[in-house]
Amino acid sequence: MQSSLFWLTPASSLLALGVAALFYRSMKAAPEGTPRMVEIASHVRAGAMAYLRQQYKVVGIFFLVLTLLFAWLAYGLNLQNHWVPFAFLTGGFFSGLAGFFGMKTATYAAARVAHAASHSLDAGLRLAFRSGAVMGLVVVGLALLDISVWFLVLSHYVEDADPAHKLLLITTTMLTFGMGASLQALFARVGGGIFTKAADVGADLVGKVEAGIPEDDPRNPATIADNVGDNVGDVAGMGADLYESYVGSILATAALGAAAYAQAGDPANAYKAVIAPMVVAAIGTVFSIIGMYAVRVKSGSTQRDLLNALGRGINLSSALILVFSYVVLRQLDLPNYVGIWGAIVTGLITGLVIGKVTEYFTSQEYSPTKGIADNATTGPATVIISGLGTGMLSTVVPVVAIVIGTALSYCFAAGSWHFSPASMAMGLYGVGIAAVGMLSTLGITLATDAYGPIADNAGGNAEMAGLDPEVRKRTDALDSLGNTTAATGKGFAIGSAALTALALLASYVEELKIAMIHAGQVTMEVAGVAVPTATATLTEFMNHFEVNLMNPKVLLGMFLGSMVSFVFCGLTINAVGRAAASMVEEVRRQFKAKPGILQGKDLPDYARCVAISTAGAQREMIIPSLLAVIIPIATGLIFGVPGVFGLLGGALSTGFVLAVFMANSGGAWDNAKKYIEEGHHGGKGSLAHKAAIIGDTVGDPFKDTAGPSLNILIKLMSMVSIVTAGVNIAYTLF
Amino acid sequence: MQSSLFWLTPASSLLALGVAALFYRSMKAAPEGTPRMVEIASHVRAGAMAYLRQQYKVVGIFFLVLTLLFAWLAYGLNLQNHWVPFAFLTGGFFSGLAGFFGMKTATYAAARVAHAASHSLDAGLRLAFRSGAVMGLVVVGLALLDISVWFLVLSHYVEDADPAHKLLLITTTMLTFGMGASLQALFARVGGGIFTKAADVGADLVGKVEAGIPEDDPRNPATIADNVGDNVGDVAGMGADLYESYVGSILATAALGAAAYAQAGDPANAYKAVIAPMVVAAIGTVFSIIGMYAVRVKSGSTQRDLLNALGRGINLSSALILVFSYVVLRQLDLPNYVGIWGAIVTGLITGLVIGKVTEYFTSQEYSPTKGIADNATTGPATVIISGLGTGMLSTVVPVVAIVIGTALSYCFAAGSWHFSPASMAMGLYGVGIAAVGMLSTLGITLATDAYGPIADNAGGNAEMAGLDPEVRKRTDALDSLGNTTAATGKGFAIGSAALTALALLASYVEELKIAMIHAGQVTMEVAGVAVPTATATLTEFMNHFEVNLMNPKVLLGMFLGSMVSFVFCGLTINAVGRAAASMVEEVRRQFKAKPGILQGKDLPDYARCVAISTAGAQREMIIPSLLAVIIPIATGLIFGVPGVFGLLGGALSTGFVLAVFMANSGGAWDNAKKYIEEGHHGGKGSLAHKAAIIGDTVGDPFKDTAGPSLNILIKLMSMVSIVTAGVNIAYTLF
Repeated sequence: MQSSLFWLTPASSLLALGVAALFYRSMKAAPEGTPRMVEIASHVRAGAMAYLRQQYKVVGIFFLVLTLLFAWLAYGLNLQNHWVPFAFLTGGFFSGLAGFFGMKTATYAAARVAHAASHSLDAGLRLAFRSGAVMGLVVVGLALLDISVWFLVLSHYVEDADPAHKLLLITTTMLTFGMGASLQALFARVGGGIFTKAADVGADLVGKVEAGIPEDDPRNPATIADNVGDNVGDVAGMGADLYESYVGSILATAALGAAAYAQAGDPANAYKAVIAPMVVAAIGTVFSIIGMYAVRVKSGSTQRDLLNALGRGINLSSALILVFSYVVLRQLDLPNYVGIWGAIVTGLITGLVIGKVTEYFTSQEYSPTKGIADNATTGPATVIISGLGTGMLSTVVPVVAIVIGTALSYCFAAGSWHFSPASMAMGLYGVGIAAVGMLSTLGITLATDAYGPIADNAGGNAEMAGLDPEVRKRTDALDSLGNTTAATGKGFAIGSAALTALALLASYVEELKIAMIHAGQVTMEVAGVAVPTATATLTEFMNHFEVNLMNPKVLLGMFLGSMVSFVFCGLTINAVGRAAASMVEEVRRQFKAKPGILQGKDLPDYARCVAISTAGAQREMIIPSLLAVIIPIATGLIFGVPGVFGLLGGALSTGFVLAVFMANSGGAWDNAKKYIEEGHHGGKGSLAHKAAIIGDTVGDPFKDTAGPSLNILIKLMSMVSIVTAGVNIAYTLF
Repeated sequence: MQSSLFWLTPASSLLALGVAALFYRSMKAAPEGTPRMVEIASHVRAGAMAYLRQQYKVVGIFFLVLTLLFAWLAYGLNLQNHWVPFAFLTGGFFSGLAGFFGMKTATYAAARVAHAASHSLDAGLRLAFRSGAVMGLVVVGLALLDISVWFLVLSHYVEDADPAHKLLLITTTMLTFGMGASLQALFARVGGGIFTKAADVGADLVGKVEAGIPEDDPRNPATIADNVGDNVGDVAGMGADLYESYVGSILATAALGAAAYAQAGDPANAYKAVIAPMVVAAIGTVFSIIGMYAVRVKSGSTQRDLLNALGRGINLSSALILVFSYVVLRQLDLPNYVGIWGAIVTGLITGLVIGKVTEYFTSQEYSPTKGIADNATTGPATVIISGLGTGMLSTVVPVVAIVIGTALSYCFAAGSWHFSPASMAMGLYGVGIAAVGMLSTLGITLATDAYGPIADNAGGNAEMAGLDPEVRKRTDALDSLGNTTAATGKGFAIGSAALTALALLASYVEELKIAMIHAGQVTMEVAGVAVPTATATLTEFMNHFEVNLMNPKVLLGMFLGSMVSFVFCGLTINAVGRAAASMVEEVRRQFKAKPGILQGKDLPDYARCVAISTAGAQREMIIPSLLAVIIPIATGLIFGVPGVFGLLGGALSTGFVLAVFMANSGGAWDNAKKYIEEGHHGGKGSLAHKAAIIGDTVGDPFKDTAGPSLNILIKLMSMVSIVTAGVNIAYTLF
């Protein structure tokens, strides 16, 4: 039953980590520039590391408490798989590690990229991209390593007479380390997001607006904190986030594959279905690396050349993945492998569509963002109104793309254009593998994503070190390029989150079944007839638990789910507001206490601003994160399984649309400001520019704190429900 | 089987209309003030009537097309009840009429209230409140008239051998005039909302911010349009809106009552269950009138006395309704009448809780709004950020109140704390009657609501006519009181919409069943067993159509539903932005063409501004309204019944939370500005004040256009699905 194709997974993992090490060493070997540049970089690095240490302390306590809780559920109440506490911990550990490595690389790279950019634009791009690639490869490498090792360990230790059922136990256990990854990711995104935006908003409000000094000016006490923020939010946060998406989609698909064939008592195909997503991810990793080597620019390239170079790399990877995933699936000989491949293609295309439409709505090349910039001429109110309106309208295409993508991948995998309960398990497997397909290029897309903040930091370093303005211009070109690629990356992150969350709903059912059998409920009543729990179809299961849309528990769960999405955003947005206010006060205080700072005579106290952002982020990230863990458990205790389904469904549909809206409004405001800065409507310093800065400031917590955290929230709530499924079976109030 | 209690309904309807006529005549008898006041009032009245005429033309075309469509479905394709086209038309007609009468009264009242306020505060209150009461009474009077007449007509003409089934046919037919009312209401709210906010934003941006002239200054060309807007948006729009809520909740409950007992073949109790909501509404009307007479203030009263007087009226009505609805239900002898009464009490209390929390989050007396005002000191960006964050957090209590209220009213009516499919029909009936209970005080709450814009207009009239500033102070006091009562009113509107929409879901099932039987599908397959369609329980029905949360059609429908809520808001917000921009240009043009305007020498061209707002509103209201009609039909054609359920569920949960968020953010910004104007943070003219004005401007389309329209959108989509249920049965793509 073992297939040699499985070994592609650990092999590609080691390959990815090896290439990452190579890139890292070549980056470290590059010269770091003037002593002033080295000094600034070391400040930023120290701040970032200090923040991360602090964050890991808080996260550590959370993990400790939850691990004890899970251990009690598993060993004390016997409501849970005994592997869960360990799986949970490793998921959290690896997710954190991915963020840590990415950030370490980024903080070492910034000054080096600035130095390289002082020679030429293409030298800067090459170094920045290679540094971003370290992060992309570390994320996929660690993810595949984690998955391979656990799969081998559990295959060895889990015992079950039925080999298909054994696979189901293995995969559902592995899924629980998705919860560790999600929780770590949520902390990283929320904490990092609050840190970076508090620093950014604070620096802008006093520095740019009140004191009238430019961005990244060394006289601004919050400027180091701002640069630290880019690293902890945009690099470490994004790394943990996408680690979680990647792992979650692969594991949810594997669990669905095991479930689909376990029911039919077909261990050979169950095994194939389990390793298929791993193998596709492995293929994706290999071709992401090949694509990276294709990103080359000649010296003297323009910005358009750079964009083309990145696009070439991604397109090459995608094309190769498409071809070779077909080859591998055929080799694997999974039934209906053509349909499965169709689902993968659908996933890739859906991600691309969402990415493109995100670009359309947020790039200053197109009318929506230009329209917002036009509205800046009548002041901040109209900028805000049109940004909100445009962001809301921008949800149409992503939602329609997800709807069509889901329907197509479902039908491809189910092998039928008509919905039938019998083909549901395979259809949902198709949805899961579509998410894997969408994320298969993660190695390279994340590289283009992570390179943005590196270029941004390089710009900050150049500005603070007082390099030639030409260098700043070049890093700005790199940064602006990064904004475009980041938009595409965000599209992938949001789209894959929606698909993965759909797949996780089905995994929740499998966990419930296991819990029921564990609790001795070997049959369940469906419309008056007893059906064996182990072989009940998804539809029979839903009918047994009355998870239908007339059940008030489901509907009330949906209300709660929609509410949680909004409340979570409200909490994080207000957190940014509060932390930014402390930052504003601190900067004002420093300017007042030492008037020499603004004249460039006195050195501001950078460390204090970093400390303020750190403290704010630590304090403010606790409640939103607690919410994500407590709400699904509480809903389950009160309204049972139907309530949990409603909660997850409501949070998924509302959260997805809300996330798209916030990300796009924020991105559009940012680029509307840039559009004006390019000289339109009076350019820098005009009234329109001032109005646009206000739009951008409002957009900051939208696009970099609340929006991206929502993706994780949705999946974390599903993961919490999956992990505590045993509790749902044992206790409900109503 | 006929109960004499039914006659309470037409009797109370005539009583309400009679008292309304009395109040109207006493208002008309009051003196209108100086010739200048009369002239201004006639300008506003002419503008408002011109707008309404124009709107009814557009709406007329829509109604014509839809009536033809329904006639084709009914008579051509035989997919629909033959009464539908007529019911649809009368619903629309009466809803429009309610708005028309309310607006006519309001436009006659404004100058008279200003004149009365020039004598004393309490004279002003009395007149304003009586004028608002006309609207409240017209709405409930026309609604109960429409319901009684149709009930009698259909009882006479509909023929069915089974008297219980006959009642089901009657009530489901009547429900379709809810669609007419909803569509009319959507046009009124969206069109009126765009008109009023375009005028308001336009007037503020050029007048207050650029030219620095105060609100309602006669030199501002948009000022008449602004006052017209209050009438068409806040009076006519709100009247149509609440007419729709009221009718919708009564009819949905009646239909559920018929369904619950028709299945059991129990015509006597079916009849009782059908008339119970009508009788409760009748009781509510009578005691609303008594409450109105209790609103008295002595001369020389303070604002707190006024608030207490209004509160006394509402509390008296509520208490009497609680007592007498128990008496009447006992008299009616409906099984489990104590439980039904419990549901009514739950509804009333839930409405109260939502109203109170709305007040807490939006009144300058409490910390949330004060916090937003504090944030004004650091500029517009922080005002916007904290307003958005606070609005999102404010969704917690309303959602939890609805969840608890629904669960309790369900359990009370079902007579059990545990959910069971058998008691589902009665439980949902309880949810419906809870909405009726919540709206039973509508006569008086709407009076306190409608009186706000009248006071606002009186202030405008006083300002423009150059009355003593003391008069303006008094009308401002009345207006500010109106803001508080309006917040409570909005809470009731949103809360009842959520409950009614839940009840409408169940009505959709009944319509589907009727359509199935009509199409010859007398049995349906449930888990392999054939069940008679007529007696299938809600749960069996859901199982037959696979309307469960693992069915991808349901989940994709939910995505679409969440998206529609956001897109609808995006469209209306952008519409306000565009219409306001035309207004800004027009006002600037007039100031430039005739410099004498600002010096008070030349008269501005008011009519042109009214025409611009009218044209903008007409143009912009079409697409959002079309969306609400087309999306449910299209979803049904593509994804069938499960897709429609998902759509309605997603739109309901997302739309409800989004509506609360927008209403509360908008209200809080408005009052944060007022708080600063009271002298905090530097008072009028300070930087904080400027920032707060920007917040208020952003909040305008939130709270007066998009937010309140969402309630109607949710119900209209349900109504469209109910009316086109036959199509869902006949055709689906997947």
